[in-house]
Amino acid sequence: MKPLNIGMVGYGFMGRTHSNGYCQANHFFDLEYKPVLKAVCARNKDKAQAFADQWGYESIETDWREMLKRDDIDAIDVCTPNNLHKEISIAAAEAGKMVLCEKPIAMNVAEGEEMCDAVEKAGVANMVWYNYRRVPAVSLAKQLIDEGRLGRIFHYRANFLQDWTINADVPQGGAATWRLDAEAAGSGVTGDLLAHCIDTALWLNGGITDVSAVAETFIKERTHAETGAKQAVKIDDACTFHCHFNNGSLGLFESTRYARGHKALYTLEINGEHASIRWDLHDLHRLEYFDHSDDSIVRGWRSVHVSDGDQPYMGNWWVPGLNIGYEHTFIHQVADFLKSLETGEPIEPSFRTALETQKVCDAVLASAHERAWKTI
Amino acid sequence: MKPLNIGMVGYGFMGRTHSNGYCQANHFFDLEYKPVLKAVCARNKDKAQAFADQWGYESIETDWREMLKRDDIDAIDVCTPNNLHKEISIAAAEAGKMVLCEKPIAMNVAEGEEMCDAVEKAGVANMVWYNYRRVPAVSLAKQLIDEGRLGRIFHYRANFLQDWTINADVPQGGAATWRLDAEAAGSGVTGDLLAHCIDTALWLNGGITDVSAVAETFIKERTHAETGAKQAVKIDDACTFHCHFNNGSLGLFESTRYARGHKALYTLEINGEHASIRWDLHDLHRLEYFDHSDDSIVRGWRSVHVSDGDQPYMGNWWVPGLNIGYEHTFIHQVADFLKSLETGEPIEPSFRTALETQKVCDAVLASAHERAWKTI
Amino acid sequence: MKPLNIGMVGYGFMGRTHSNGYCQANHFFDLEYKPVLKAVCARNKDKAQAFADQWGYESIETDWREMLKRDDIDAIDVCTPNNLHKEISIAAAEAGKMVLCEKPIAMNVAEGEEMCDAVEKAGVANMVWYNYRRVPAVSLAKQLIDEGRLGRIFHYRANFLQDWTINADVPQGGAATWRLDAEAAGSGVTGDLLAHCIDTALWLNGGITDVSAVAETFIKERTHAETGAKQAVKIDDACTFHCHFNNGSLGLFESTRYARGHKALYTLEINGEHASIRWDLHDLHRLEYFDHSDDSIVRGWRSVHVSDGDQPYMGNWWVPGLNIGYEHTFIHQVADFLKSLETGEPIEPSFRTALETQKVCDAVLASAHERAWKTI
Amino acid sequence: MKPLNIGMVGYGFMGRTHSNGYCQANHFFDLEYKPVLKAVCARNKDKAQAFADQWGYESIETDWREMLKRDDIDAIDVCTPNNLHKEISIAAAEAGKMVLCEKPIAMNVAEGEEMCDAVEKAGVANMVWYNYRRVPAVSLAKQLIDEGRLGRIFHYRANFLQDWTINADVPQGGAATWRLDAEAAGSGVTGDLLAHCIDTALWLNGGITDVSAVAETFIKERTHAETGAKQAVKIDDACTFHCHFNNGSLGLFESTRYARGHKALYTLEINGEHASIRWDLHDLHRLEYFDHSDDSIVRGWRSVHVSDGDQPYMGNWWVPGLNIGYEHTFIHQVADFLKSLETGEPIEPSFRTALETQKVCDAVLASAHERAWKTI
Repeated sequence: MKPLNIGMVGYGFMGRTHSNGYCQANHFFDLEYKPVLKAVCARNKDKAQAFADQWGYESIETDWREMLKRDDIDAIDVCTPNNLHKEISIAAAEAGKMVLCEKPIAMNVAEGEEMCDAVEKAGVANMVWYNYRRVPAVSLAKQLIDEGRLGRIFHYRANFLQDWTINADVPQGGAATWRLDAEAAGSGVTGDLLAHCIDTALWLNGGITDVSAVAETFIKERTHAETGAKQAVKIDDACTFHCHFNNGSLGLFESTRYARGHKALYTLEINGEHASIRWDLHDLHRLEYFDHSDDSIVRGWRSVHVSDGDQPYMGNWWVPGLNIGYEHTFIHQVADFLKSLETGEPIEPSFRTALETQKVCDAVLASAHERAWKTI
Repeated sequence: MKPLNIGMVGYGFMGRTHSNGYCQANHFFDLEYKPVLKAVCARNKDKAQAFADQWGYESIETDWREMLKRDDIDAIDVCTPNNLHKEISIAAAEAGKMVLCEKPIAMNVAEGEEMCDAVEKAGVANMVWYNYRRVPAVSLAKQLIDEGRLGRIFHYRANFLQDWTINADVPQGGAATWRLDAEAAGSGVTGDLLAHCIDTALWLNGGITDVSAVAETFIKERTHAETGAKQAVKIDDACTFHCHFNNGSLGLFESTRYARGHKALYTLEINGEHASIRWDLHDLHRLEYFDHSDDSIVRGWRSVHVSDGDQPYMGNWWVPGLNIGYEHTFIHQVADFLKSLETGEPIEPSFRTALETQKVCDAVLASAHERAWKTI
Repeated sequence: MKPLNIGMVGYGFMGRTHSNGYCQANHFFDLEYKPVLKAVCARNKDKAQAFADQWGYESIETDWREMLKRDDIDAIDVCTPNNLHKEISIAAAEAGKMVLCEKPIAMNVAEGEEMCDAVEKAGVANMVWYNYRRVPAVSLAKQLIDEGRLGRIFHYRANFLQDWTINADVPQGGAATWRLDAEAAGSGVTGDLLAHCIDTALWLNGGITDVSAVAETFIKERTHAETGAKQAVKIDDACTFHCHFNNGSLGLFESTRYARGHKALYTLEINGEHASIRWDLHDLHRLEYFDHSDDSIVRGWRSVHVSDGDQPYMGNWWVPGLNIGYEHTFIHQVADFLKSLETGEPIEPSFRTALETQKVCDAVLASAHERAWKTI
Repeated sequence: MKPLNIGMVGYGFMGRTHSNGYCQANHFFDLEYKPVLKAVCARNKDKAQAFADQWGYESIETDWREMLKRDDIDAIDVCTPNNLHKEISIAAAEAGKMVLCEKPIAMNVAEGEEMCDAVEKAGVANMVWYNYRRVPAVSLAKQLIDEGRLGRIFHYRANFLQDWTINADVPQGGAATWRLDAEAAGSGVTGDLLAHCIDTALWLNGGITDVSAVAETFIKERTHAETGAKQAVKIDDACTFHCHFNNGSLGLFESTRYARGHKALYTLEINGEHASIRWDLHDLHRLEYFDHSDDSIVRGWRSVHVSDGDQPYMGNWWVPGLNIGYEHTFIHQVADFLKSLETGEPIEPSFRTALETQKVCDAVLASAHERAWKTI
């Protein structure tokens, strides 16, 4: 068993999901490499120590630059708010570390390009945590498409609907609500939610050529969590766009944090000539599949309970009928990353791949701002 | 177009569903015969007249014996409470009329046998209104089974769940609630609801050999709707039984009027070696179908929206995707009955067929009473 | 009972749904007026006669101008392809007839305005058959919104998905496929399907201020059903748009005939501050409802089986749990129209109301053509 | 942090679920105690070592009696086939170890009673792994019932449907298929599946007074996995029973391994006077809830996505909308067990509690054998 020494920057929600991935991957997958939790870094020493205790990190740091200097660390995991992705990732690459960066890759395309250049120049392994590719049902969708079962694609449709910011008392900024703060997050639902939808779409359906978007900020002012000041909200609360894909299909995307009744409903649907696919995150263990070649009198959407050994990743878990959940997408990504170190095959999505999603995000925001179609 | 002159006895809920069937059949089916609404009979003259006006009956009667004497009537439709089925049906047969009797055929097997003998002796067309056979999705289930798609059957499961009698203030007896009165109804959920489940089961899965049942009356006393007297409730509020079928499969049946949240949820499921089928009345336009021969990675329950032209009865209605509802089962039964007059093929379920369901009902009630298995 | 003498122009799919509405309304609703099927008009005499025989029309015409001259006809029902709506409707109004016109009102706004002016000048009752308003679940949605249960609206989302034209062998033009022929239909999915979505949206959520659309024609050439000539397809196969409503909410609409697996899936969803609503035509008897004021631990989308007596229209049908279907929307519209004659309250949607939908349709097509936002 | 030193006997499917529970509990729950994986015991040394390596057990044993002698082990986890539960559990108790035994507690009531006596005499902590109590949605059901939201209960309904033994080539006996071998398992679906249903039922709905059952063995002979001999199958392939509960409600239970299309579908439904509850394992993150006190026009089954911080256990996981899965039930049971060591409150289900389930299982098998009602 070869150790892969991890240095984590950040300790929030994503810090937990990644740490869990490092702890669990080798319990369920046969791998040559095994993560070792060397250090977690946070400005607040007590919080860093508490997190280290909870997850078994061997040490803590309070300055990520110090962590980059350590020889006992192989890979830096960047779990900070978006505005720090660039600086830490580039420095880590320059220090010769592998870089595992949370999504979206950066605040904008310009930053992302610098980051891609840096990791490629340094020749270090790199990936972005677009975890939803590794939901077994979504991986199965990819397999079905690659097998040609859908035929020519006509429509791609995705949305990511939440409702947690409807209350005007939700603040912006701070550790818990930095996603509402344009300074820290860059954008609102576009970088947070649409970015997921776009990453999956580019993976499943190929490139996007142009977009036409509309965005809205429903609540115009919110209190800042740290300063207590009432400030204008500069992020997009909701954003919708339609687009053309390279393969001639039409795309339709929507995200919002104002869809009462939906907690984290990421859904996608693909309509092909021969077959269609649907999936949603609230019931992530099911893939809906319609096959037009079925005998006509018994043709219908199949609800495929993705829990069998011959379906992606599921042979490593329990027995048919028994579900896994959200956190497992990160375990799968860790396992695939460790496997990539064994095989030398690059892990996906790389920084360069994630940059494509950033290009669409930037075009979407520009289109919404200018009320005009934008070419990617 | 040949007229079929109808004389209806009763004007309640079933009087409406049957009358609608007579009015609608020829709008949607190409048939040689066409029903003519000659007369409706009710003891209360005003109610009879109001019903005749609503549905276009040409005349009224207040004594069904008078109606049987009329030469201008070909068929008697018996829509009375159960305790009158026998007398009217036998008299109608003896008068040479076709007899179309509401379900269950009678209060018990003994009555049913007399009725079968009478119609057979008279040589008149006869049928019982077990309408659920003619839900398109249920007819499709029959077709799939007859084609051998399910293979050896292991399990048959059905229930009929309602919640309308939970309130202790619901009375028994009278026009609206005679189904709670053992004098008029013979039994409670067994004759009212289980009888439907049993008829479908015998049709789809063959004969039942023995049963073991349990029944319960949850509310012991209710006011009589007409007398105002508080009386013991003598019907079964809930009844459950398991059984063996001739084909070696196990059966499990339940009905109740105390299943909070279910209005009229008749469901059935059949598990075969190769395929399974599910259906429920609340979404009656869908057949759930699982085919084990599907490619394993995309195997799942199919939700078949039964609205296409190649599915039973649906070619006579609208276009794919557009639903029909409950009342159409009676329209289909009228259409099939009219067709049977054309072809000379007997209509099903006949009195004799419906007697088989009665035998199971009687055995179920006896089993529940004696806490012992009963052979059919 | 007062007769309302009907003259029907056309005998296709809509001719059947309307005729059924006329036959059934008085069986289920207490109404002063009762339709009398006086005449059906079609160029082909045999087809007109066959239709008259099936539905009980007393006479036939082969020239609609002749029908307008008849004194024994009160109301003209226009069930022709879209390109004849204007001429017939205006002539009927000028002849002093009530005019009941299929949707969309016309080929474009200019035609629609002439029609509105004509019926208003003549002072005749007029309505357009946007039947989906009268699905009980949709009527219930309207009631819930009018009661203020949703609060401020953030999102309105609708689509109408079909898959019947994916096969390149489907022809254009002719009696069965005129909807694919721009000459007869004016547009493709926009006038056929989006028009329904827009009518409901304007009714439920108020006016639309601007739209940005994209349209696609996936199959570029089709054979003409009558001439056999291969011709360019000039209709939109798919059309998507986003928009702003007057109330500040965002709208997202999509329609297509290339969504494999969906026969006629009209869905809508409205997200409000306090509650949300969803509905789809494939399960039209259910309204999904999410109420944020529910106790948090048991909060969830409710699947409301709209079949109870206190829900719109359902008190006129059967008993709780028993479904009605598609055709009943027309029966309800007939019943409401007859009631409007009694009360003097105008029926909705009137020609003038339907013109608002046409304005949005025209703007959508223009936006798609010009790749630019269009103000209504 | 206080260590709890674990000695595991067995390394199969349940060995994995429990080991995962020990590894994960402290990552998500704040607990004074923390499991330490001291030793795993298996007759086959290589398999024991492989399991130890996978999960981080510090040592291995090949004789469980040796493990009981070790002072560095506090708790014995019994994950063997059922026929070894008694001997190991009693010996462990006599050695002063805590005993955590897989379900069902034993081969029969007589064995179970000895085991209860042993742990109680020794005064050691004891529990049985009826893990489904700790599905958050099931725990929520318990909470709702305890709060009185359902009122008087009329019906309890549960089934556990699988289809993995339909193929006659599935062997009996051996490590993978001992559940088909009466020698090792004691019974078939009754001890394996119905036991789960019964444990949950007794917990949610109180005691059962009498049962009437039917059982079936569909495939009469199977090859033994180790000997290769064709032998009679002595287990029950399917078993169904109805029963009375102490609270006056009727129960209906079914389990089978011949329900084509169902992998591991454990469902339960409870109908009360005021509210009803439904749950199924295939979508274990949802609780269906019907509340009759809802406003009648918007009353319907609510699909509660159990993933919020105020729902049982979920505050320890991710954010609303993100699912956990099957394995988490064991993590919860470990966490609750560790908590019980802190608080001194006994953990449930104890051996004594699990014995009640065994009593029902024995009565069910006797009833099926004798075709007669059996009192518990």
